[in-house]
Amino acid sequence: MRAAIYPGSFDPVTFGHIDVIERSSKLVDQLIVGVLNNNTKSPLFSVDERVNMLKEATKDFGNVEIISFSGLLVDFAQSHNIHILVRGLRAITDFEFELQMAQTNRIINPDIDTIFLTTNLQYAYLSSSNVKEVAMYNGDISHFVPGFVINKVYEKFGIPKR
Amino acid sequence: MRAAIYPGSFDPVTFGHIDVIERSSKLVDQLIVGVLNNNTKSPLFSVDERVNMLKEATKDFGNVEIISFSGLLVDFAQSHNIHILVRGLRAITDFEFELQMAQTNRIINPDIDTIFLTTNLQYAYLSSSNVKEVAMYNGDISHFVPGFVINKVYEKFGIPKR
Amino acid sequence: MRAAIYPGSFDPVTFGHIDVIERSSKLVDQLIVGVLNNNTKSPLFSVDERVNMLKEATKDFGNVEIISFSGLLVDFAQSHNIHILVRGLRAITDFEFELQMAQTNRIINPDIDTIFLTTNLQYAYLSSSNVKEVAMYNGDISHFVPGFVINKVYEKFGIPKR
Amino acid sequence: MRAAIYPGSFDPVTFGHIDVIERSSKLVDQLIVGVLNNNTKSPLFSVDERVNMLKEATKDFGNVEIISFSGLLVDFAQSHNIHILVRGLRAITDFEFELQMAQTNRIINPDIDTIFLTTNLQYAYLSSSNVKEVAMYNGDISHFVPGFVINKVYEKFGIPKR
Amino acid sequence: MRAAIYPGSFDPVTFGHIDVIERSSKLVDQLIVGVLNNNTKSPLFSVDERVNMLKEATKDFGNVEIISFSGLLVDFAQSHNIHILVRGLRAITDFEFELQMAQTNRIINPDIDTIFLTTNLQYAYLSSSNVKEVAMYNGDISHFVPGFVINKVYEKFGIPKR
Amino acid sequence: MRAAIYPGSFDPVTFGHIDVIERSSKLVDQLIVGVLNNNTKSPLFSVDERVNMLKEATKDFGNVEIISFSGLLVDFAQSHNIHILVRGLRAITDFEFELQMAQTNRIINPDIDTIFLTTNLQYAYLSSSNVKEVAMYNGDISHFVPGFVINKVYEKFGIPKR
Repeated sequence: MRAAIYPGSFDPVTFGHIDVIERSSKLVDQLIVGVLNNNTKSPLFSVDERVNMLKEATKDFGNVEIISFSGLLVDFAQSHNIHILVRGLRAITDFEFELQMAQTNRIINPDIDTIFLTTNLQYAYLSSSNVKEVAMYNGDISHFVPGFVINKVYEKFGIPKR
Repeated sequence: MRAAIYPGSFDPVTFGHIDVIERSSKLVDQLIVGVLNNNTKSPLFSVDERVNMLKEATKDFGNVEIISFSGLLVDFAQSHNIHILVRGLRAITDFEFELQMAQTNRIINPDIDTIFLTTNLQYAYLSSSNVKEVAMYNGDISHFVPGFVINKVYEKFGIPKR
Repeated sequence: MRAAIYPGSFDPVTFGHIDVIERSSKLVDQLIVGVLNNNTKSPLFSVDERVNMLKEATKDFGNVEIISFSGLLVDFAQSHNIHILVRGLRAITDFEFELQMAQTNRIINPDIDTIFLTTNLQYAYLSSSNVKEVAMYNGDISHFVPGFVINKVYEKFGIPKR
Repeated sequence: MRAAIYPGSFDPVTFGHIDVIERSSKLVDQLIVGVLNNNTKSPLFSVDERVNMLKEATKDFGNVEIISFSGLLVDFAQSHNIHILVRGLRAITDFEFELQMAQTNRIINPDIDTIFLTTNLQYAYLSSSNVKEVAMYNGDISHFVPGFVINKVYEKFGIPKR
Repeated sequence: MRAAIYPGSFDPVTFGHIDVIERSSKLVDQLIVGVLNNNTKSPLFSVDERVNMLKEATKDFGNVEIISFSGLLVDFAQSHNIHILVRGLRAITDFEFELQMAQTNRIINPDIDTIFLTTNLQYAYLSSSNVKEVAMYNGDISHFVPGFVINKVYEKFGIPKR
Repeated sequence: MRAAIYPGSFDPVTFGHIDVIERSSKLVDQLIVGVLNNNTKSPLFSVDERVNMLKEATKDFGNVEIISFSGLLVDFAQSHNIHILVRGLRAITDFEFELQMAQTNRIINPDIDTIFLTTNLQYAYLSSSNVKEVAMYNGDISHFVPGFVINKVYEKFGIPKR
């Protein structure tokens, strides 16, 4: 059975992430969304909160599983015996960074390959950082994240429910 | 009356900023230079110092006003009933970031559009960060910022007047 | 009265062009769409056909005029006493080329400045060449050009009306 | 059964193409290499020659088939009931072009998606045009194309066997 | 004695080329400007005309020699026992192309290395194609090429002396 | 005697750095590797450790000297009476940053010029940050840094010798 991992921070999940999950889940038999638990960064949402939001957002896709991980992505993939990584590409700067990561991962573990999907144009402007920047100042984020995520984000910034 | 906002941190104002202000002030009836007061960054100059340096630097342009703001740029624009944003473009990485900002702003408020001017070649290398990096080590910044700004920058780094 | 020129080949006009025309017509008092009549290229449509398609496509915008020109863009602008050029930006490669053109034009005539609008994401993939490439093989171009342009393009490739 | 198409001109096939074919053939059940037969370009090799070189180069991969096509790529894919396209990415300029193609194809046929693989660093400099440019002047192309292709290329330029 | 080759078409020589020649001539003992005689392109000036314009433009630099060549650049370098190539970098698209050429040349002849100089900002917009495009329509090219070149370019387009 | 400076943080030295040092040492009579001692960053290795690793890594190159510096690079170069800086180029984002630095340095001291070498493809993915990221999670860094550096890096992260 062919399986792939779509890794990320998902802090929080956006419509752009969901688009990549939906499209890549059609390409493989099983898709694991790997939620990075990185101690050196300070995410807005805990890893458990991020896993739960992703579970809610992907509950209608039959072959998607949400799992958190720490450490090296290639080790996480190897431990699940998975050899395909999926990444979304939005822009040039993305591309350079992603290229570097893909090459580094292949040097560390030559059995693992990365495939890229280009982000749907509709979501090409969208990043989790953007969502947080807009929400922090009480801006409207309803075009960026699913309905059930909106108030969770405002709450983190002490903004009352809309 | 057609008006536009040229937003930025201006920490401190450079010849590159002044070039964009001068050229865009010719394109509109009124130009507001919006000085971002962002609590999450630690600027070298206070927002008042930055406003005052801009006032001095633009005193000869008849239709330019300097106003500080906090929060979302689109809310600042809306509150002044302004629908045009102006941004300078220096380089590729700039372009990607600016494109993302312009698209995000249009999603949040579809009535607001962004126009871009390409930076004069003479100032294409120039950024406020650059100025601070050079000044910190007592380098010559007289090609980067107006005369009345030079010693204000050195002073911040405890360097005696030149 | 402030006026601007939006120059191009428009072979044929696309929804991307119309988006830039609509948005830039709101920024100025008068917008001239300058249709380049370049002898060294072989356009699909004659300059008269291109002018007429643009007239039809922009008939609802009150302050837009369609004029063909040959020779240097800066001379065309000067002859109409216009000092603002408008260009749409889609992608990186665009940006490099556009930057070079804008700088060259400013060297030749320092009174003329160029402002850039970023293409609506919905049309970011779109170019006249693309439209022709797809139509040549009888592909569907109804998402790319206005209804009245569709059959004009197919006709040029000897493809019967749809 | 999941299948994909890897389209291109392959004029001639290079080690870079073979790397993408080998790696993508591991990701899918069946890989069709689609050889574009484009009347408006003048390839060095006929479409039959290009198909035969690809057959030789991929004879050890069990699930790879070589088929030529003309017209729109999305129509070729649809006629084989295939919904995945594979493309290799070498550089920035590539990326912009490929992004535009992928988006255009998705507009024309929303059921078809494109996945990208980054070219192995070893072949990142390599293109069919490069190979022809070097061979034309009797340069050494043995690091660029398989052994059985080398003399076929020289022959086209009237250069005696090495 | 360390020597380098600065190759190009120089059709015609511009202030940008002369800037790179002047600066790189200071870095090496001997600089050969290699003028490409490429049969597959149709230059505006013959190779002899281009060599002569370069000789005139560089007559004050003591260690610069102008030599035409055809065939592969690496073979030209090898035949003069030179192992350093010099190239000017203007922009992103340049960079990608130049990177590809440099890597290809190193694969063909590992003894030859390429060094890059960034073009002076003042000439960053400038290319020989630009010069010809502007001159063709009788535009002012005096900021782009030396005085003795100006009328030679106009003459090629049948434009009377200025 | 012609000399050049190759500046950097080298935290730690990688095979990519050593490639640039080896190749540029062949271009000049003397190469000084300048190790930046920057108080505002927190390097993994002290400046002395970095200097010593570089000395070990370059001990076979006859004309290479390792010297630490603080302050402005152009002042360091001037104090050694050196007018050539060497930088390696890996990718687009690099290029933009490097271009900006080179132009700034030339504004501050017009006598100093920067030459660029493109990184060997084999090391194009490689950065000191990457090495630290991989080592932190006990990943294999033996393809990235010399043997004698490997355990020094693990040690910093409290990982036992391999």
